[in-house]
Amino acid sequence: MTAHAIRQIRVTPIAFRDPPLLNAAGIHEPWALRSIIEVETACGRVGINETYGDQSMLDVLARVAPALQGLSPWDLNAMEMRVQALVQPSGRSSEFLGELISLAPGTHVSKNVAKVVSAFEVAMLDLQGQLANAPVVDLLGGAARDTVPFSAYLFFKYAEHIDKPYAADPYGEGISPEQMVAQARRMIDQYGFKSIKLKAGALPPEQEVAAMLALAKAFPGTPLRIDPNANWTVATSLKAVEQLRGVLEYYEDPAPGLDGMAEVARQCDVPLATNMVVTDYKEFADNVRLGCPVRIVLSDHHYWGGLRATQQLSRLCQTFDMGLSMHSNSHLGISLTAMTHLAASVPHLSYACDTHYPWQDEEVVQGGRLKFEDGSLRVPRGPGLGVTMDREALARLHDNYLHCGIRNRDDLGQMRKYDPTFTGKQPRF
Amino acid sequence: MTAHAIRQIRVTPIAFRDPPLLNAAGIHEPWALRSIIEVETACGRVGINETYGDQSMLDVLARVAPALQGLSPWDLNAMEMRVQALVQPSGRSSEFLGELISLAPGTHVSKNVAKVVSAFEVAMLDLQGQLANAPVVDLLGGAARDTVPFSAYLFFKYAEHIDKPYAADPYGEGISPEQMVAQARRMIDQYGFKSIKLKAGALPPEQEVAAMLALAKAFPGTPLRIDPNANWTVATSLKAVEQLRGVLEYYEDPAPGLDGMAEVARQCDVPLATNMVVTDYKEFADNVRLGCPVRIVLSDHHYWGGLRATQQLSRLCQTFDMGLSMHSNSHLGISLTAMTHLAASVPHLSYACDTHYPWQDEEVVQGGRLKFEDGSLRVPRGPGLGVTMDREALARLHDNYLHCGIRNRDDLGQMRKYDPTFTGKQPRF
Ligand SMILES: [Mg+2]
Ligand SMILES: [Mg+2]
Repeated sequence: MTAHAIRQIRVTPIAFRDPPLLNAAGIHEPWALRSIIEVETACGRVGINETYGDQSMLDVLARVAPALQGLSPWDLNAMEMRVQALVQPSGRSSEFLGELISLAPGTHVSKNVAKVVSAFEVAMLDLQGQLANAPVVDLLGGAARDTVPFSAYLFFKYAEHIDKPYAADPYGEGISPEQMVAQARRMIDQYGFKSIKLKAGALPPEQEVAAMLALAKAFPGTPLRIDPNANWTVATSLKAVEQLRGVLEYYEDPAPGLDGMAEVARQCDVPLATNMVVTDYKEFADNVRLGCPVRIVLSDHHYWGGLRATQQLSRLCQTFDMGLSMHSNSHLGISLTAMTHLAASVPHLSYACDTHYPWQDEEVVQGGRLKFEDGSLRVPRGPGLGVTMDREALARLHDNYLHCGIRNRDDLGQMRKYDPTFTGKQPRF
Repeated sequence: MTAHAIRQIRVTPIAFRDPPLLNAAGIHEPWALRSIIEVETACGRVGINETYGDQSMLDVLARVAPALQGLSPWDLNAMEMRVQALVQPSGRSSEFLGELISLAPGTHVSKNVAKVVSAFEVAMLDLQGQLANAPVVDLLGGAARDTVPFSAYLFFKYAEHIDKPYAADPYGEGISPEQMVAQARRMIDQYGFKSIKLKAGALPPEQEVAAMLALAKAFPGTPLRIDPNANWTVATSLKAVEQLRGVLEYYEDPAPGLDGMAEVARQCDVPLATNMVVTDYKEFADNVRLGCPVRIVLSDHHYWGGLRATQQLSRLCQTFDMGLSMHSNSHLGISLTAMTHLAASVPHLSYACDTHYPWQDEEVVQGGRLKFEDGSLRVPRGPGLGVTMDREALARLHDNYLHCGIRNRDDLGQMRKYDPTFTGKQPRF
């Protein structure tokens, strides 16, 4: 085994506090799961990454990890071939599964190959950067921008979790239009975001439209987006976009399925964006064959196959005159930093990226919470990802995981604690 | 300026002997032009590349080179942005220009941005590899294969150039089917190629078909391809493919234009390949919108925008269920080595690549002519490209350039020395 060859891989599941955020599937549980990957070389260097933490992901990471021993950190293609040999993708490829939805493509087994490749690719790129004394962004072609803009990601929410597992978050209840404007104000004051996204599909559409109109009035000139997560019928989608005339930068996943989106697109002049119906290359081709009803792909390197695969997606978007931005899940600083390196390296990225980061108050990297400047993150210039693990924090977050009792994200089950009649069937409105 | 920043760039035009090879546009001149790029850092490292050498390319390289001073070798995106700012792509994007054709997309000004980006990208990757102590293939994701297969690239040809500028090449005349079988035999004996491509569109189609049938008989089981360079009508294309039933691996550019290719595709079950109608991303999208009449893209990093851009093209091909191989021009070892690193890094590459290399007998890299094993080249494992310049050879080849009198490739003009009535109008047959 050469000095730089991969000697061992550690996968540590973690859990961190997550507020009671409402969405089409239900409500966030008190603890969000992730896993931390550490890829260690024979010479003792460690490359890190952060990815999904649900049980099925832990299982597949554990299956693949031993097979990567002996690879060089540069052997990304060989890593991918080994993952493909060990992980069978399922036939299902859409976020829309029958009548129930999952909001996180990352929880789908159909994405297992892409997810596992991404999980190890980023850690190997972190190692490559250490070996080459170059930041990951340089391994991706260098910075097309020094800072990466993110948007204020608003959620309808309750003041606290039903079982009150810890002190309430500082944002308070977010239901009325006034409360949502206050939520946006607080988040923008703290982080400086220049655009706003509202997660919708949770309350009756007229309430959500009213919140958007209040935001448009309170933040004139700020680009606004709404994401009902396919929880609206085509008719509801068209009615809402009419009421929001002149307000939206883009319209994210109003109606279910590529067909539903195509029907909305035929009668609506706001560009449609998605992280639900174009979630892999096959679905990308499907959208092209329909004449590109979806105009903007909200990419996510965690399930698109990694940072380099997302760069390739960018080329696909350019080729078919489509825009590109980024989707997010609840995550911590390693994931957010990887997104930042990637976004900095993609000239075509045309919108501020999503991040759930402001909803978290824990961190796993040294130095604690990442600092936004004017709504943007600066691309680290140190070798690799440019962030290092805080091992005490990792132990604490792993302890959260051991004690929280959650092993798979279940927004639906959590919502039933509040409303036993909640079915999660969609489109609900 | 940091130690690794680009301090200066040298572009040296070279010329090397090229046999009297026939094609749709006319015949090769006695000297083929290329240019050698040297990108030197403040600390004295030199990254090299080889690209087109016609006057318009030299002009645009000279315009851009000073603007890259101060960039890091990692700053590929910044390099590309500077090239875009300085080089205006023309509106024309097809190899088929009215009634006259050019066989080398590299001579088109429409490709200037992509060509210049590629010219500097490879040299900067060579530098990156030196800095990271890694071969270029590793910077591209690592080797998906250790060796890259090439095909025997046959040409109809005369025994010597009309003006006899130097001793005749060892292949002799190649006109009759028997001579073409002998040409293939000689090339395969020397290099070990496992597939055969015949450059056609030069002689009456029945003669070319007869040569293909003779090759099929002489080399049973060997994949065969024919490339008439769009010099056949749709009717001729269909007649020939019928005569070649069961013989062809793929059918390269029989008829002119995407429309002509689409018409052939509708009536022919051999997959169509091209380096003439899908030569950039816009044309790729055009082909997809027509339902992919062209099934195989013969890529060429020299005009597709570089090694990374060609990897992105590979993803496009995969997404739309298209195959990928590689096109070639007359070239030397730096260009061929860059192709080898690239091809090794692209798992999707599904056919043996083209190369004109056996038709050359000069070299610009240390160690002289590259060695094929069983028709394949082994990917170098040294830092960067893994080949270094032979400065004496460079001086000699530059001297060729100064004395040869050729400044732009002109196969048509050369053919008129043999046949003053030759017009180059196409499709000729
Ligand atoms: Mg979404
Ligand atoms: Mg060709």
